Amino acid sequence: MDRMDGAGIALPMNWNQLAVLGPGLLGGSIGLATRERGLARRVAVWARREEAAVRAGGVIRSDVATTRLAEALDGSDLVVVCTPVETIAPLLESAAPHLGSGAVVTDVGSVKGCIVPQAEEALRASGARFIGSHPMAGSERSGLDAARADLFAGAACLLTPTDASDADALDAVRAFWEALGCRLLTLSPAEHDRIVARISHLPHFAAAAMVGLAAASHPDATACVGNGFRDTTRVASASPELWTQIAAGNREALIEALDDLAVELSRVRDWVAGSEWNRLEDFLGMARKTRDNIRNPATH
Amino acid sequence: MDRMDGAGIALPMNWNQLAVLGPGLLGGSIGLATRERGLARRVAVWARREEAAVRAGGVIRSDVATTRLAEALDGSDLVVVCTPVETIAPLLESAAPHLGSGAVVTDVGSVKGCIVPQAEEALRASGARFIGSHPMAGSERSGLDAARADLFAGAACLLTPTDASDADALDAVRAFWEALGCRLLTLSPAEHDRIVARISHLPHFAAAAMVGLAAASHPDATACVGNGFRDTTRVASASPELWTQIAAGNREALIEALDDLAVELSRVRDWVAGSEWNRLEDFLGMARKTRDNIRNPATH
Repeated sequence: MDRMDGAGIALPMNWNQLAVLGPGLLGGSIGLATRERGLARRVAVWARREEAAVRAGGVIRSDVATTRLAEALDGSDLVVVCTPVETIAPLLESAAPHLGSGAVVTDVGSVKGCIVPQAEEALRASGARFIGSHPMAGSERSGLDAARADLFAGAACLLTPTDASDADALDAVRAFWEALGCRLLTLSPAEHDRIVARISHLPHFAAAAMVGLAAASHPDATACVGNGFRDTTRVASASPELWTQIAAGNREALIEALDDLAVELSRVRDWVAGSEWNRLEDFLGMARKTRDNIRNPATH
Repeated sequence: MDRMDGAGIALPMNWNQLAVLGPGLLGGSIGLATRERGLARRVAVWARREEAAVRAGGVIRSDVATTRLAEALDGSDLVVVCTPVETIAPLLESAAPHLGSGAVVTDVGSVKGCIVPQAEEALRASGARFIGSHPMAGSERSGLDAARADLFAGAACLLTPTDASDADALDAVRAFWEALGCRLLTLSPAEHDRIVARISHLPHFAAAAMVGLAAASHPDATACVGNGFRDTTRVASASPELWTQIAAGNREALIEALDDLAVELSRVRDWVAGSEWNRLEDFLGMARKTRDNIRNPATH
């Protein structure tokens, strides 16, 4: 049965029950948005800690809020895993016996090359179908308190199907994210990791490095910063634990990205040292043109 | 005669006429704020091009809007030079014969080590007194259209007096920026350049490098970016011409900052390559702590 959303677009889904595993910023926002847009008849949330499950159940007004996987997965035809990247595969191994055959499972992990094959393997015997997702809608804030129903409006969501992926499951996952307001792009897991190393992971480590250099330069330096520095280094406030896990999960691509950045900065250094101002201005001009073409999300 | 501002603080100034030389983002905002707060009886604006002078005169509702320096400087006891860094010293040389003895002259230049001695030299025979200023209130936008009266509210402003500076002029310039809403910090020109290379200049070149790497990684990469990348690279939309001039004006300190960043990123690379996750997490934790302590400006 198709439903119409506010914009009059037919939604090709009507989920019986969404299970959110790990209701933090992303999981909480998925629960809130699913509720607000009526995308599933029921919502279940699972958290590792009792207190987190109870709180998330209250915030999302979920039908089920539990620390028992079997209870959250019972009757769930869509499962979104929103736990830290290193826990996704182990959690799916624990979940597999409780998944209905035909259930669609996706995640929000920031790395894919290592997760997708593990997730596919974990679910192989269950009859459930896995599609990797990565909505680009994080924030330097984390946790349920930062969750909101419009977090995904206008954001890109990267899907990483493989040769083993079920076409119907891919369509269903795509439709789910579209209903949450995302623009979808489909990439291989390896392409995904290579791109996000540059557009998401690298900026975190560069920002952290620049914060450190600023602080070391003078006792008053960080009291002097303007909006440029504030914007550039905002992501340095993100969770150290989370971003260390992401680095570990995307190690090879991150090393390559760090090496590429070193080469670029060395070119800049040589232009400055050699007073090659035309080259420097061309470089800044190219970057400006590219940056100006990056559109802002619709609602942020 | 002291005046009281809205917060009941005595303003130790009552300027006869403010002259803004170069009414772009910063100069236009200074004019608007001076008008709004009644800090000077009259405001004069000077621009190189007739059209720019007329437009700025309209926006600021200035008493004088001219392309003739002598006309703008006549009767001005406070002069703020807001032209690109490489033009500040030559402009002051042209201005010197028209400055009243005792006039206070300052600037908004992003570099100081090369400008301050030149400015002091240019004004030596005039009897006017120069104090270097650098309000940290730029933006990736530039030009008069982006000007606004509250641009400086809560921003830091760095003052760079030297042994040759007049103490009364320093007090007067400090009071002027405070009246515009700035927090003041006093540094030597060399300290200033070393700090701003790290908190202002370096982020521009790192952002431009990351934009280039992202665009080169995949045709769809820049369509996928999230808010983190958007924030981190916003400054890459700044004027290539302006930032090339700034690099040229702060060449030595920028090279040092680029070298320091290369060392930091190489440490990160080694931790990732060596799977030294505890060290990486400590590094991110230190950066987060520092970044969390950077306060946001009051009104932005």
